[in-house]
Amino acid sequence: MTTSFNAADLALPGIRQLQPYQAGKPIEELERELGITDIVKLASNENPLGVSPAVQAALTAAVSGLARYPDANGFYLKDALATKFSVEINQITLGNGSNDVLELLARTFVQPHHEVIFSQHAFVVYPLVTKAIGATAVQVPAKDYGHDLDAMAAAINHNTRMVFIANPNNPTGTFLGKNEIEAFLEKVPEHVLVVLDEAYYEYVPEHQRAPSMQWIDRFPNLIVSRTFSKAYGLAGLRAGFAVSHASVADLMNRIRQPFNMNQLALTAALAALLDEKFLHDSVAVNQQGMQQLTDFCDRKGLNYIPSHGNFLTIEVGPKAGEYYEALLHAGVIVRPVAGYELPNHLRVSIGLADENDAFCQAMERILP
Amino acid sequence: MTTSFNAADLALPGIRQLQPYQAGKPIEELERELGITDIVKLASNENPLGVSPAVQAALTAAVSGLARYPDANGFYLKDALATKFSVEINQITLGNGSNDVLELLARTFVQPHHEVIFSQHAFVVYPLVTKAIGATAVQVPAKDYGHDLDAMAAAINHNTRMVFIANPNNPTGTFLGKNEIEAFLEKVPEHVLVVLDEAYYEYVPEHQRAPSMQWIDRFPNLIVSRTFSKAYGLAGLRAGFAVSHASVADLMNRIRQPFNMNQLALTAALAALLDEKFLHDSVAVNQQGMQQLTDFCDRKGLNYIPSHGNFLTIEVGPKAGEYYEALLHAGVIVRPVAGYELPNHLRVSIGLADENDAFCQAMERILP
Repeated sequence: MTTSFNAADLALPGIRQLQPYQAGKPIEELERELGITDIVKLASNENPLGVSPAVQAALTAAVSGLARYPDANGFYLKDALATKFSVEINQITLGNGSNDVLELLARTFVQPHHEVIFSQHAFVVYPLVTKAIGATAVQVPAKDYGHDLDAMAAAINHNTRMVFIANPNNPTGTFLGKNEIEAFLEKVPEHVLVVLDEAYYEYVPEHQRAPSMQWIDRFPNLIVSRTFSKAYGLAGLRAGFAVSHASVADLMNRIRQPFNMNQLALTAALAALLDEKFLHDSVAVNQQGMQQLTDFCDRKGLNYIPSHGNFLTIEVGPKAGEYYEALLHAGVIVRPVAGYELPNHLRVSIGLADENDAFCQAMERILP
Repeated sequence: MTTSFNAADLALPGIRQLQPYQAGKPIEELERELGITDIVKLASNENPLGVSPAVQAALTAAVSGLARYPDANGFYLKDALATKFSVEINQITLGNGSNDVLELLARTFVQPHHEVIFSQHAFVVYPLVTKAIGATAVQVPAKDYGHDLDAMAAAINHNTRMVFIANPNNPTGTFLGKNEIEAFLEKVPEHVLVVLDEAYYEYVPEHQRAPSMQWIDRFPNLIVSRTFSKAYGLAGLRAGFAVSHASVADLMNRIRQPFNMNQLALTAALAALLDEKFLHDSVAVNQQGMQQLTDFCDRKGLNYIPSHGNFLTIEVGPKAGEYYEALLHAGVIVRPVAGYELPNHLRVSIGLADENDAFCQAMERILP
């Protein structure tokens, strides 16, 4: 019998220092804690339209076959992705959400002596996957809440192996134009892999979108990641993918867990990809909701960071933590972003009109 | 434009040497290749009863909520697991299949200078997760196709960080009694973590099962992994878990992807855990099918490795590869195991009576 056993003595140093990811508070958890119902969750940048009817039908049809392992190659989904995005099947790596893709990239290419660059106020998974390996996370100060690409380029040295760029960025919603990114890619040496995380790509108007996947021929060190968790409405199913140079995809697929996307995620992602009407409706609802929230902020004199995603990050001042708690008790879950060095802001996901209205009404009561 | 780019120049040395996992051939792939239908798949140790009706009902009810992220803490599933197995919630780590749990263990505790011990003929994921880190995989020769625990204990040195034991073992079906494992654990120093992979636990008669989870109080360096992919019938959903000392679970949960189990996997695993009748029926069908296959082998004079799992590994001689191909053309998918240093064997998963019969009839025609 041992009382002194502590596994931390055996773990990698980087992992001992990690804090677990703080997810948005689930509705059920708040119900358990506060004993209230009819909760509005605007905390996790989820699609307020729910799941497309076509996806629901595909899932229901697939339920009986689940004692079989998933297709380890994801043949049908990759084939559809390759067609839709005009890339080759061997450029695609499927992930259990794009989180999985980001982690696979770090684990495949980053060693403990490497540096990984990302921006202040960027997605928390970038430092997390970096530190889990024991590599050095290099955070570059933001400019106007967004990526400062010149400063990021200047931070590259011979130890740099990877740069993460989120476009649009979460949790700020800031956006980099295609010319800016292209100019950055031209400056980056080929031994540095650039991961362009386009989780919110579908919310960007078409004429503003970068031809990112087509750039890979010119910039083989570029990897583009996308997700089905936002505009496609499949956050609960975990489906994401990377498009890269074939030699990058080949290596990622060697350490990818062979069944990392489960069968229902494969099924749903394929159905969602083909349902263009739902995607269109999701973007339209987001535009209307964004207008609703920015109108409210303008009326109340609240500053916000102009957003290109499906959320709005609002400056509410040093009482942000108190407001977050007060909103919880009013049955509205939003996201505090102090962990992103934004202690005066709250991030509000765009919901349906009445959900956005519930937030606005609660804020009316809470604000001084 | 660069033509010389090859990402392998940038990847970890261990990953360059990895071969991707070879999954059992999916039914749809064989249909595409050979243009045949009515295929019997006995290749991946899946549950031939399919998915429990209770699970199907729970999944169908959950389909509409999938635009929300899963519960990152898996509260309801962990609570039910803790109750069923008399452990604490903080001892549990949920995985995207037990593959995920095995990988998390290696990534949390194993560094490149460490050695990881496992048996010849054991599950391919053990060397795979070891090599992906760049650590040294130490394969100990098997004894009668099973783990040689004395030799494995003797292989432990000051660089050893982890030992994997599969019980029952896949792909041989061999089984270690509880006294053997207990004696092994008493010999292992505490800086060596012992991972007891009990993926096929439910097929072992109750009186033979080790009280493995209860041993953790005495052996805090013991980790037990289980899966919902076999007797619970959820291979397509990816649900597994580890029970360990709380300090081990704490660290694993820091690098676990927060949404590694998707919402339908959480939902299905909870429903499956509570459906004891389906579990009982699955084990009963397996016993009958095992008898059917061993009777066939005995009648044909074929040797097989006595199995405690849901599969039978049969010695068919040096033409195993040819027989595998001939079975494919007869519409029966089994698993060649030459990659497990068993070039004269084929592994046959136990199916329903008519599926097992299809295998036996095809073999009757194929065997000389």
